[in-house]
Formats: sequence, structure tokens, C-alpha cells
Amino acid sequence: MPFLTNTTVRRIEWGECDPAGIVFYPRYFAMFDHSTVLLVERALGISKHQLYATYDFDGFPVVETQARFMIPTRFGDDVVIESAFVAVGRASFRIQHRLSKDGALAVESAETRVWVVRDSDRPGGFKAQPLPPEAVAKFTAAPAPA
Amino acid sequence: MPFLTNTTVRRIEWGECDPAGIVFYPRYFAMFDHSTVLLVERALGISKHQLYATYDFDGFPVVETQARFMIPTRFGDDVVIESAFVAVGRASFRIQHRLSKDGALAVESAETRVWVVRDSDRPGGFKAQPLPPEAVAKFTAAPAPA
Amino acid sequence: MPFLTNTTVRRIEWGECDPAGIVFYPRYFAMFDHSTVLLVERALGISKHQLYATYDFDGFPVVETQARFMIPTRFGDDVVIESAFVAVGRASFRIQHRLSKDGALAVESAETRVWVVRDSDRPGGFKAQPLPPEAVAKFTAAPAPA
Amino acid sequence: MPFLTNTTVRRIEWGECDPAGIVFYPRYFAMFDHSTVLLVERALGISKHQLYATYDFDGFPVVETQARFMIPTRFGDDVVIESAFVAVGRASFRIQHRLSKDGALAVESAETRVWVVRDSDRPGGFKAQPLPPEAVAKFTAAPAPA
Repeated sequence: MPFLTNTTVRRIEWGECDPAGIVFYPRYFAMFDHSTVLLVERALGISKHQLYATYDFDGFPVVETQARFMIPTRFGDDVVIESAFVAVGRASFRIQHRLSKDGALAVESAETRVWVVRDSDRPGGFKAQPLPPEAVAKFTAAPAPA
Repeated sequence: MPFLTNTTVRRIEWGECDPAGIVFYPRYFAMFDHSTVLLVERALGISKHQLYATYDFDGFPVVETQARFMIPTRFGDDVVIESAFVAVGRASFRIQHRLSKDGALAVESAETRVWVVRDSDRPGGFKAQPLPPEAVAKFTAAPAPA
Repeated sequence: MPFLTNTTVRRIEWGECDPAGIVFYPRYFAMFDHSTVLLVERALGISKHQLYATYDFDGFPVVETQARFMIPTRFGDDVVIESAFVAVGRASFRIQHRLSKDGALAVESAETRVWVVRDSDRPGGFKAQPLPPEAVAKFTAAPAPA
Repeated sequence: MPFLTNTTVRRIEWGECDPAGIVFYPRYFAMFDHSTVLLVERALGISKHQLYATYDFDGFPVVETQARFMIPTRFGDDVVIESAFVAVGRASFRIQHRLSKDGALAVESAETRVWVVRDSDRPGGFKAQPLPPEAVAKFTAAPAPA
């Protein structure tokens, strides 16, 4: 894995599951969104609140995502999510998430996010903005050897 | 549009939005999941509860999905979701969702679902099952002329 | 009913239900929050976005809520939610929600909200603020005769 | 504290917060529901899945809940939730949750749950059932001295 990776473990909750007894798939994206925050925070060494205070920007919304669901997970399962930067561009970056259960890959997802500022011409609108150079450097840093 | 389409309108709720004031993107998938239920119910002419009672099956989980987010939507926005079957296979089908706001396409998504029965060999597991022939016929029916 | 009431109908969604096949109870509060927004918007004649633009305030968070769950509801159920102001104070107001299914009361809830401005002394904190007099007048108006 | 207590820590997620930047209050109930599962599992020494397999019952739905929200919490906050049995009856039990942030009580809630079996006379309906005696004994056990 060339770029920084962050790993989290979470217990699937009853309320994240649907009447089939398995995770309601939109909630995997909520888990991945949180994993992305943790990855970005770890890469930059500051919290998301500090991020807004440090940089003149308004977030990094997802512009494209995709996922494959291979093994269902159920309430009570402890799943592992590995999230990693897989591409970093001028104003965007791509993150891959791999969620596994008992060592088997259950869900695989990748998302592209854009570094944005609010667009004063459109209420609720945003426009892309180049990533700060130090963010590029930190997002593309190789992970420290274990 | 070759196959059956269903259109719904929904008001974006405060609680569906995140601190950026726009829809938290995982919730679009929840909206699309509901749209799929409405489309399947309309195609088959029965409710999802009746579906389980009628057919010897255990649901149609999503195995793959993807989405592009082009325009953010905010609480109070009335959005239109058009959902349509775009492919129907032996044990699977693909649905496309187009969410628009003020006539402009805001989110586009497509998902593949598999008709399944519970797999008695794996707790919480499922296995694919051929679609009932009448479901194939109804999912691939051309929409009635307006 | 002395004060303004607003009634909405909503279809319970698959993704709002838990492995027991019934609504995961925290989601009733999300439904009630949306009903409160609709009631306040109706009372004041403006949208929540316009509300922030019109008044020098930062929202009306819930400070206390309670609910009784009498009849479970399931995906596919069409429920009716009647929401009404039941008390209006200097800086706070109380709303009651009655959710029914097939004419039978299924969930009853009441919440107290406070009109607030951000407290510059505490990040993320708020402090109570008197309600604008016209809001008090509109919240306590008797409903128009049918 | 007379009865068994369980304490969990959780990081507030971006997607749990609303456009005011604070937790959307219905999500506190989702956190408390999960805390209740952890408390019951700890009391009985088995998982919720095993619970269904062990006892002839269909869950312990909430029939009444209430909460007071004193201090808002924001994404990135690490909150502590202390959950404890406060009353155990013939077919019901009551749990109290105290969520604190930086040592200050932010949210206080209490809920009553009923031990139920499905009611074959009403689709989706449930009826109360006496708690198994060993559940009563374990729910009312004093916590071990630290």
C-alpha cells in the first residue's frame, strides 16, 4: 500500500441493521465517511474542527463513490475498516475503504472528494479549490515502517 | 426510457443534512433504497410485505452501487427522484436513480440487486436465486404510453 | 385543540426499521423533528432558511423530550402525524406529536424547544433568547375554523 | 448506584451532526439503544444474537423514553455514556443513561423496556412476557466492588 492507511474497528449496532437483520447498506457509507475523517485527521495531525480553522476552505465533499457488498454483516459483528489514500490530485483525492469481518473482505468502496470553498454565487453551492501543498505532501506520504 | 420508471418527490429534512448544511451523502442511498422499493412494488402490483408472502425468497440486497454527486441539496429543497429498471438478468436486476432539483440533475446513481434466499449454511448469509418469470416480465415491461 | 396544528402523512421506509421489522424508535424523533419544522414554517409563513435570515437567532434546539410507544409500526405503513403547539413561553415553546396508524394512536411525544443564539463564550454552545413577539403571537394563534 | 452499570466511550461523528454543527438529538437515542444492548449483554453474559437463541422471546422494545439535553456535543467530541438498570419489574425494566463530555453531564435519559413475544393475532404486534428469573437476578445484581 503506497500511501497512508488508517484502520478502525467497530461493532455493528442493532440500529444500523434492517428487517433482514443485516446492515442497511447506506450506513456503510456513514462508517466510511467517519473513517475518512479519521484518516485525514491522522494525515494532517489536526482535528476536523482545527482543519476548518487552519485552512481557508469549506470541506471535502464526496463527488463520486462506489461500493461492492460481498458478505453481509450483522449486529454484534466486529468489523475492521482499512482506509487509505489511493490518489491525490490538484483539488481532489481518492480514498479506498476495505471492510472485513473475521478476516474476509465484506465491503469494498472507493470515493473521490474535492477540496472546496463556498461559492458565493449559489446558495449552498461549492467550488473546487487547490489542495494546500502540505496536505498533498501528507496525503501522499508513505506509511511509516511498522 | 425502455423499462418501467417511478417518480417520487421528497422534501429534504434538517436531520438529513450535515454541519455543511447539505445532505449527508449516505442518506441519498437511503432515499434511493426507498425509491427502489416503490418501483418494485409498482412493477409487481403488491407491497414489500406481500412480496415476502408471495415468493419463496428473502429479499433483494444491493451487491454493487455507485453514485455521482453534482449539485448539493439542502434542507427544505424539494427533490425529484426518477428510478428505473435498466437491466434485468437471471437472478439480478439493475436500477438507475436520477435525483434532480429545480430541473437540474443533482445526483445520479445505479445499483445492482440480487434476488436471494437465506443460506442455511451461513448465519446471516444469502445465496442468489433465479427471479420468478413474472417478475422478469414485469420489470422489463415498457412503461404505458402517457 | 387551542393552538395551531399541522398534520403530515408519511410512509414508513424499510431503512427506518430494525431487525425486529418495526421502526427503530430513535427514528420517530427524526420524524417529529421534521414535523416541528413544518409546523413552525406554517405558523410563521416562511421556510427554515428564511427564518435564519429573518431573525437574529441560531435555531430552536430541543432541551427535553419524552415519548410513549404504544403500537409498533412497520415498513409500508402510512402513518399520520399531528403536531401542535401546546405551550409558548418567553424563550421556549412546547410541541406535542401524535402519530397514528389506521386511526389508532401509536406514538405520543412532547418536546420543549428553546429559541437560542450562539454563545460566543463557549464553542458549540448556545444561550436562550426571548422569542420575537410575532412568533409568540403566531405560535399561540387558534387554528382557523375548518 | 445500586444496580449494574456499563460505561462506553464514543467519538461523535460528522454524520451524526446537523446543520447547527451539533448532534441531531434523535441520534442520542440510537447511542442509548446501543448502550442498552451492551448493558444487557454484559448483565447476561451473552450476545444479543445468543439472547434470541436462548430465550423464547422476541426482544425488549422501548415503551417509554425521556431525555434532557443540557450541553450540545459536536463532531470530534469524545463522550462517555454510563448506562444502568434503575428498576426491574415482572415484564419490564428501566435503564438510565448519562452522557457526559469533559466530565460535565450533557444528556440524561431514561427508558422503559418490555420483554415481549410476537403476538400471533396482530401482524407486527407484540405482547409482554414475564422476564426469566435469572434475567431479573442479573439485572438487579449489585456491581462488583472496584
